[in-house]
Amino acid sequence: MRPVALLTDFGLSDHYVGVIHAVLEKYAPGIPRIDLDHLVPPGDIWEASFQLRCAWPHLPAGCVVMAVVDPGVGTDRRALGLALGRRFLVAPDNGLAACLGPASDVVEIDWRAMGLAEPSRTFHGRDVFAPAAGWLARGEDLTQLGKEVEPNLLVSCPLPDPEPLTSGYQATVISVDRFGNLATNLPAGSVNHRATAAWSSEGSARRVGTYSDAGDDEVVLLEGSAGFLELAVNGGSAAMATGLRREASLRITHIDDGDD
Amino acid sequence: MRPVALLTDFGLSDHYVGVIHAVLEKYAPGIPRIDLDHLVPPGDIWEASFQLRCAWPHLPAGCVVMAVVDPGVGTDRRALGLALGRRFLVAPDNGLAACLGPASDVVEIDWRAMGLAEPSRTFHGRDVFAPAAGWLARGEDLTQLGKEVEPNLLVSCPLPDPEPLTSGYQATVISVDRFGNLATNLPAGSVNHRATAAWSSEGSARRVGTYSDAGDDEVVLLEGSAGFLELAVNGGSAAMATGLRREASLRITHIDDGDD
Amino acid sequence: MRPVALLTDFGLSDHYVGVIHAVLEKYAPGIPRIDLDHLVPPGDIWEASFQLRCAWPHLPAGCVVMAVVDPGVGTDRRALGLALGRRFLVAPDNGLAACLGPASDVVEIDWRAMGLAEPSRTFHGRDVFAPAAGWLARGEDLTQLGKEVEPNLLVSCPLPDPEPLTSGYQATVISVDRFGNLATNLPAGSVNHRATAAWSSEGSARRVGTYSDAGDDEVVLLEGSAGFLELAVNGGSAAMATGLRREASLRITHIDDGDD
Repeated sequence: MRPVALLTDFGLSDHYVGVIHAVLEKYAPGIPRIDLDHLVPPGDIWEASFQLRCAWPHLPAGCVVMAVVDPGVGTDRRALGLALGRRFLVAPDNGLAACLGPASDVVEIDWRAMGLAEPSRTFHGRDVFAPAAGWLARGEDLTQLGKEVEPNLLVSCPLPDPEPLTSGYQATVISVDRFGNLATNLPAGSVNHRATAAWSSEGSARRVGTYSDAGDDEVVLLEGSAGFLELAVNGGSAAMATGLRREASLRITHIDDGDD
Repeated sequence: MRPVALLTDFGLSDHYVGVIHAVLEKYAPGIPRIDLDHLVPPGDIWEASFQLRCAWPHLPAGCVVMAVVDPGVGTDRRALGLALGRRFLVAPDNGLAACLGPASDVVEIDWRAMGLAEPSRTFHGRDVFAPAAGWLARGEDLTQLGKEVEPNLLVSCPLPDPEPLTSGYQATVISVDRFGNLATNLPAGSVNHRATAAWSSEGSARRVGTYSDAGDDEVVLLEGSAGFLELAVNGGSAAMATGLRREASLRITHIDDGDD
Repeated sequence: MRPVALLTDFGLSDHYVGVIHAVLEKYAPGIPRIDLDHLVPPGDIWEASFQLRCAWPHLPAGCVVMAVVDPGVGTDRRALGLALGRRFLVAPDNGLAACLGPASDVVEIDWRAMGLAEPSRTFHGRDVFAPAAGWLARGEDLTQLGKEVEPNLLVSCPLPDPEPLTSGYQATVISVDRFGNLATNLPAGSVNHRATAAWSSEGSARRVGTYSDAGDDEVVLLEGSAGFLELAVNGGSAAMATGLRREASLRITHIDDGDD
């Protein structure tokens, strides 16, 4: 059996997430279940895509991820099942399904073909995606969920890519975490260890190896735990210190002196 | 072994819920455990009853639910174990135990008869209800928990029933979810598809099939995921748009033109 | 296999806790996993120590606890593995590892000796502590994690001990829970059942057995569920009623009349 991991915007104040677990337990009794994140802001496909990208490399082989942030529930947006390497993803075709890059196989989940009861209009997480994840978890093949579709014709992920400049990149703040760290979309290996970030005429930060290399209240640029560069303040909040928010631009520049 | 599902007002900021899981793991090692909801407002039996009713039909057969919202802990209110169809419920006798309708069998949980240590005065969830749920989960019979009591003499559930009118129902707002949807106590099948809801001289809503049938900012009446009618705004908050809160009354009226 | 319980300050708004679960599932597939608390305020070793002390006696035998509140991540603070009775703890050597009293065996976790990839600078929970907990959960010996160190040379726990007075104790408010109860550091058995607490010239409370012994709005002193004395208001908030916060002092006095 394959473990199932869940990422939604259902919140924790209602029975919604609990019922998803109950449905998984019905379809795949005893399966290991993992909650990745249920506090994605309602309908925020951008944030869901970022969280999913960060978690993905650390999931067990064979893991089935159910990612449901689904403002289009009840419309004709497609529900998809994807094979990505040795893992699986079920997600709506609204950008979220595409956020991990190209899949080897994609099917459109078809509740009729699966023999499910007619889904409610408002809770496909419970009535479509969780049964599909449960089927995959107990070992069913992806093609049992519905017909194959063209992997290249999915709705694009909303996360922007960094843009190359002559001596670095124009990067974007992608997410702000609980500690006020500002994660960008630039992989840490893209620039060298003497890179700097600038976001205004006066706002700039040098790259350091770890929090403790920073001076008191200093905003620094360092590699975050998901492998992307981020702005941080040791023991403080970079979001507060800089005033930057999600979607803010910053210029991350190489300082190339020949021996790095 | 039977899975256990938990619904409490213990919150997520302390060790309380974790310790419940630990006690379950002691009494029924390896049992599947499901968190339904722990953010019920403190002492709010009404909200707990609603969440439990919504989740109940989706729980696996044999599931043991421990529902503990227990402002009377330490008094002589009874702790109950119930059999309802193929599932079990342990809950205090304060209205919560009665919220799912008549049980086939009810016992009063007796920690002395179970051979438990004397419970703390303030945390029967950990010391009484969790051991009882663990016993049921590992397959013990309900009668092992204590003596049978009369199923008809439980404290009544606080949730009001809808009241029939000549051409519809007087319904009540039962719960407001994270998205601002206003769930009522009226099952969706009680009125036809051309029903309307009215809550003031100017406030009214037509029934639609799904969110996307609604106009911009339009408050609509539709079937929620738990099978009850609710007021909603597509991409917005019906609670904000109408100013209605829990316990508000609304009149939901049939429009019968003979072909529906 | 041994169950694993988690206590962190990672919050619930990101993928951090989910990824810890994923790593545990990789190292110890199918292991029972328990979330004790992830909403410890960021970096608050004091609160983490209190929550861990409260939960500890209720954990199953053999349980492996991963407690990570780690403001010194990336510095040279040690990562430790401890054996305490029949349970295990992995935690940073910042006071948290010492909060449960003397361990029988302590090792310094050595990711190189364990053959792990080089950890990130900012997320040792994922890259060091979770693999160590996973190893213990699947049955490895503590000495597989690294070299033994002297149990008496750990960084001290920040929680203060109560100070004896001639007729009682100077106690400290250690934690304020969701309900506004003020937990102190004084074990309930330290004073008799006619003890009183005083925190100002006018503020005082008598000891009662349970909430329902309190008058309307009365602040009372009673034994909390973790075995420590606490100030509480039946159906209300002692924090609001008294204005006291964490670290506040109160004098808890015996009233000894010879027959208690």
